[in-house]
Amino acid sequence: MSSFDDDTRVTTLGTMGDAAGSAVAFAGQVSPAWDIGTNPNGGYLLALAAQAMRQRTPAQPDPLSINVHYLRPGLSGQACLIDTQLLRSGRTLSTVRGTLAQDGQPRLELLAAMGRLDEPAAAAAPLLTLPPPDMPPPEACPGRSAPAQGVGLPILQRLDVRLHPDDAVPGAAGRAELRGWIRFTDERPPDALACLLMADAFPPAVFGLLGLVGWVPTIELTVHLRRRPVPGWLLGRFWSQDLSDGRVIEDGALWDASGQLVVQSRQLALVRQA
Amino acid sequence: MSSFDDDTRVTTLGTMGDAAGSAVAFAGQVSPAWDIGTNPNGGYLLALAAQAMRQRTPAQPDPLSINVHYLRPGLSGQACLIDTQLLRSGRTLSTVRGTLAQDGQPRLELLAAMGRLDEPAAAAAPLLTLPPPDMPPPEACPGRSAPAQGVGLPILQRLDVRLHPDDAVPGAAGRAELRGWIRFTDERPPDALACLLMADAFPPAVFGLLGLVGWVPTIELTVHLRRRPVPGWLLGRFWSQDLSDGRVIEDGALWDASGQLVVQSRQLALVRQA
Repeated sequence: MSSFDDDTRVTTLGTMGDAAGSAVAFAGQVSPAWDIGTNPNGGYLLALAAQAMRQRTPAQPDPLSINVHYLRPGLSGQACLIDTQLLRSGRTLSTVRGTLAQDGQPRLELLAAMGRLDEPAAAAAPLLTLPPPDMPPPEACPGRSAPAQGVGLPILQRLDVRLHPDDAVPGAAGRAELRGWIRFTDERPPDALACLLMADAFPPAVFGLLGLVGWVPTIELTVHLRRRPVPGWLLGRFWSQDLSDGRVIEDGALWDASGQLVVQSRQLALVRQA
Repeated sequence: MSSFDDDTRVTTLGTMGDAAGSAVAFAGQVSPAWDIGTNPNGGYLLALAAQAMRQRTPAQPDPLSINVHYLRPGLSGQACLIDTQLLRSGRTLSTVRGTLAQDGQPRLELLAAMGRLDEPAAAAAPLLTLPPPDMPPPEACPGRSAPAQGVGLPILQRLDVRLHPDDAVPGAAGRAELRGWIRFTDERPPDALACLLMADAFPPAVFGLLGLVGWVPTIELTVHLRRRPVPGWLLGRFWSQDLSDGRVIEDGALWDASGQLVVQSRQLALVRQA
């Protein structure tokens, strides 16, 4: 079993006191292995919460759309409670609400539209799709490094992140764009849950424009899973065209090893120095 | 008072039985004047729900980010109940949850990050921004019309929607893009709440590529309000680069009469015929 599976394991605590019988709580543990500095990575917390939420819709395991609001930073190395509520159960689509709490306080609030995507081999060709950016192979791309990010990166024990040579030094690119490869260090194949993590596991795209501007806390993140990935590296591109008054919209996309678009993402984040 | 204010009025029903005292319910009425065919427009329902949600954060009236999942179609001309919960109250940012129900069933489920944007005159120049598309003036653009959309459009009694001449005939453009002007027929100036409506009040962008493909129901919509608009027309651009397996991601942006970007939006919708 991969450490990602281990670190996103949840245990049902059963139905809570809810008239409709639709609320179920889960227990989990926030592993310190996914920290950025001393805070758990937001993508990891999202995956952990989504793991609980999708227990509610076993026939629809794929988050077609998931929104998360980060109310407070997660607590590294501590237990968490994930409350879930099945809002609507449909034949092809169901809607689930989630709250991840630690130390008695809500940290993440989530909404997801759950469905079932085809297996990669059975998926039809898209009518419209975003093409992947040109990238040197992973072997020719430098790894994301703690000194270059100005923060300790315990998460690098779990994730192998390689950046486009032009994007690896904060501020050097002169534009808010970041391209890179990502996979688990233990080479676990990516899946729907891994896509949620990997949609928020790269350095902020604004670093390319502004240089290191410290922690860029996410207010809200939406991830759309478009296709299940094939095994191998994921290729990510993250960019911003909209930064004002200390708030940035960062767009993102992930492609799998067959070149297919698997994720679109968008987040609203705070840029303290802008 | 403008009909939009009238049709989004909500009345507090007071605190519900909630241990934390954070839940408040509101009553409203879904006016039939905003229908597309016989269904209330999704942007109108969003504005109505957001009107209730922002009563919870009077010092932070602007939805910096709002996510809505459409669980079931709204019921035109019927009363609605909007349950709200203040999830976190912060100095500059608060998070509110909402559920709009009619006839005892939840229809919209929402999450919002609420804040306060500067008045247009006081807002700083953005560091990065999306430029508006080239557009002929409103006088040179044909109005959105019911025959061209293949559906009755009661909403046109409330909204003046003018389409770019190249985008006005479904299927003619050969690409999933739509540009147009929008304002209230009574010329009420746009504001934060109006931006939510107007982010989802144009024909689907896929009509430009596929022609009329019937109702394109929104699964989930996220609207980011970036700036308060000045009085006048809003200019909208909506486009898709990602359509597969009957699901489309539609991106959108609105600019105000001074040319400033005021909204970015993204939705996941079903395309029945694709």
